[in-house]
Amino acid sequence: MKRLGLLCIGDELLDGRVRDKNAHHVMMRGEDRLFKVVEMRVVRDDEAHIIAALDAMSTADIIVVSGGLGPTADDRTRDAAANWSEDTLLHDETSLQRLQARAAARGYTLSENNRRQCSFPSRATILATEVGTAPGFRVDHKGTQAFFFPGVPREFQWFVQRYLLPVLGTDSDQQAATTRLQFYGPGESKLETDLAGIEELATRLQGRVGYRASFPRIEVSLKAPEEEALAEMVTFVKERIGTYLITEGHETFFARVGRRLKEAQATVAVAESCTGGMLGAALTETPGSSAWFERGFLTYANQAKIDAVGVHPELLEKEGAVSAAVVCQMARGAAREAGAPFGLAISGVAGPAGGTPEKPVGTVDFALATPEGTYHRRTYSPGRDRDDIRLASVYTALSLLLWRLEDRLEAHTLRGPFDDRQVDLGVPQPD
Amino acid sequence: MKRLGLLCIGDELLDGRVRDKNAHHVMMRGEDRLFKVVEMRVVRDDEAHIIAALDAMSTADIIVVSGGLGPTADDRTRDAAANWSEDTLLHDETSLQRLQARAAARGYTLSENNRRQCSFPSRATILATEVGTAPGFRVDHKGTQAFFFPGVPREFQWFVQRYLLPVLGTDSDQQAATTRLQFYGPGESKLETDLAGIEELATRLQGRVGYRASFPRIEVSLKAPEEEALAEMVTFVKERIGTYLITEGHETFFARVGRRLKEAQATVAVAESCTGGMLGAALTETPGSSAWFERGFLTYANQAKIDAVGVHPELLEKEGAVSAAVVCQMARGAAREAGAPFGLAISGVAGPAGGTPEKPVGTVDFALATPEGTYHRRTYSPGRDRDDIRLASVYTALSLLLWRLEDRLEAHTLRGPFDDRQVDLGVPQPD
Repeated sequence: MKRLGLLCIGDELLDGRVRDKNAHHVMMRGEDRLFKVVEMRVVRDDEAHIIAALDAMSTADIIVVSGGLGPTADDRTRDAAANWSEDTLLHDETSLQRLQARAAARGYTLSENNRRQCSFPSRATILATEVGTAPGFRVDHKGTQAFFFPGVPREFQWFVQRYLLPVLGTDSDQQAATTRLQFYGPGESKLETDLAGIEELATRLQGRVGYRASFPRIEVSLKAPEEEALAEMVTFVKERIGTYLITEGHETFFARVGRRLKEAQATVAVAESCTGGMLGAALTETPGSSAWFERGFLTYANQAKIDAVGVHPELLEKEGAVSAAVVCQMARGAAREAGAPFGLAISGVAGPAGGTPEKPVGTVDFALATPEGTYHRRTYSPGRDRDDIRLASVYTALSLLLWRLEDRLEAHTLRGPFDDRQVDLGVPQPD
Repeated sequence: MKRLGLLCIGDELLDGRVRDKNAHHVMMRGEDRLFKVVEMRVVRDDEAHIIAALDAMSTADIIVVSGGLGPTADDRTRDAAANWSEDTLLHDETSLQRLQARAAARGYTLSENNRRQCSFPSRATILATEVGTAPGFRVDHKGTQAFFFPGVPREFQWFVQRYLLPVLGTDSDQQAATTRLQFYGPGESKLETDLAGIEELATRLQGRVGYRASFPRIEVSLKAPEEEALAEMVTFVKERIGTYLITEGHETFFARVGRRLKEAQATVAVAESCTGGMLGAALTETPGSSAWFERGFLTYANQAKIDAVGVHPELLEKEGAVSAAVVCQMARGAAREAGAPFGLAISGVAGPAGGTPEKPVGTVDFALATPEGTYHRRTYSPGRDRDDIRLASVYTALSLLLWRLEDRLEAHTLRGPFDDRQVDLGVPQPD
């Protein structure tokens, strides 16, 4: 497993003008390859800083350097590379001729600055480009291979594909087995408590466990030397917190919901109040979504709930828009209007205003209409802002649907199923 | 001018799972503040690596550390901080009591792991949190102030606002007046070309100009020593590219659209196809949105377009769902169903599949229904992925509405207004 250091060069990457893309591009390639990124740095276009960073990163097997190879005077990378490797810059006529041919083909002439792009440390291996004006180069110095690539993301990515990945190889020999499981519901510390013992198991199997919270979901990553050990770890995790699993592997949560609907040859219709369209947007994020999503209703105002999905006016009057009875009529009504087997509805107080003592900001009602009846769930998330309440609501709604599609509903706290008559009569009430 | 080093900690930031947000958040704050980010690093959850990075960054005046303060065993930052500053960890009972009170208010009990979050280097200044479970802390060591903040972006940003920015101070002495203008439509290089001369003006006024592209919008930031000079720069910019202005100052684009509707005492109804709810979500993002948004229709399937907003079946058959005639009927129908003065509709080919030679992926039709008739616009964005096409579509739709509300429509290329009879007859056609 090769150890990689990534070094990105450029003032614009430190003053907020540009958010680095290149380092992330390499990192994402790590999954199936025999390397591990041990550090990433961003430094200014300053020769001393670049040299210091190269020195410090020389403990890595490979350093990938991005940027600072442009034609202008503030591009300092080639000088730094020469100094770092105790070498001098040498003009390369072949590179210049290539550059001139390219310029001629495009009808412009080279500037004096472009000539600078054809100087390289004398012992470097020059890496020709087919996608821009700046060639890259490779310097082998004190046991470290340093690749210098242009910083323009399109060019950088081409260099990675062409020159870096072949050197790294894939892990088909070692079969380092990895997967990710995503969970929604409990917090990170509860998950870790429930998973007590996983670290010991991982150690015994020479595997690894990692946690990451990315609101509102939590991801558990598992690695093992081979598939069998990985499977043992996955089983361990699922036995303990599988109730809250929303997806695993490369599939996104939203894509999994869509796939389950497609497998069931079913569609879902939505009726959204406080989320205002976010639920529909999530259901249509994945290509091919017309297989499971045909329509939805954004019923933000009370009159819209009455007109579009047939909520009873007197029920709205009596229970309020954020109530079990109303949200069940919304879900049932959306499914009926759409002729869909499933209906999903959200109505809540996203704030910052609009809270009451009985229904404070953060109170959200959910309903899932199904062929066997309509389920209700209420959540309350104090202290969250409007964006977070809305985003978490999408996750809660879609997890209800997923659990129903995967026959996992009974493990969760919810009310129902209420039959159509009960929904019509406004029977559903929160506990 | 204080020199800042940024250190982000976490395996997930190096293996491609998460792209760092926090460092970029601090960098962007540099604009109005007296600091300069000299370096940014990302290291693994590894004590030795963290300590080495802190040591190397000690030449900075301030180090901001993000991450590794969670409750789990792989969170190594507090141990590293203690070792780096030649200190030991000490349990803080006050922090624990706060955490317990928070847990009690939310009806859960603390895990043993949460106790870990209440240990700090004994000489550290503890920074209480109001947004999560992890307190931060500050360590002053060998002339460097190191701030340790939780890595969850929402929490990190709160800590920056509360504890870091006050220490950095603003450049109110030198650059009192600042503003930002956001544009949507042309690319960054066209904007820069159109703004030729702004650098000279800024230099003469001792001000500054900055550009930032944040897809799909472009932000131009302006600074000047006093308001009068700033006003001169703003006028210069608006005279040249004001056509594409979507908002300015602190107000978001979506909030500005909402405010304009509110000022006009008008509401807008939406009919969305390829965006599947993103337009409604944008219109309800801003608190108080019930003043301008009451309902919408997610008409993903053709039958939904017919049932919910009254598109004529024979028109759909003849023109296809992505067509000027159909999208105008969608917008008109949405407004009519909602009894709203304005209707906004989107129908397009977001891809990756579904393109044809006549309507390739990236073709999107927009319609804006108004009291004076219905306008149509078609855009074509080749080479963009599904997410980008959908996001840009929301911007195009809302900019049409904004320009109508601000009487700026005539500066843009669109067809119409078509009266209701023309819309009924399917008259609108692309050029």
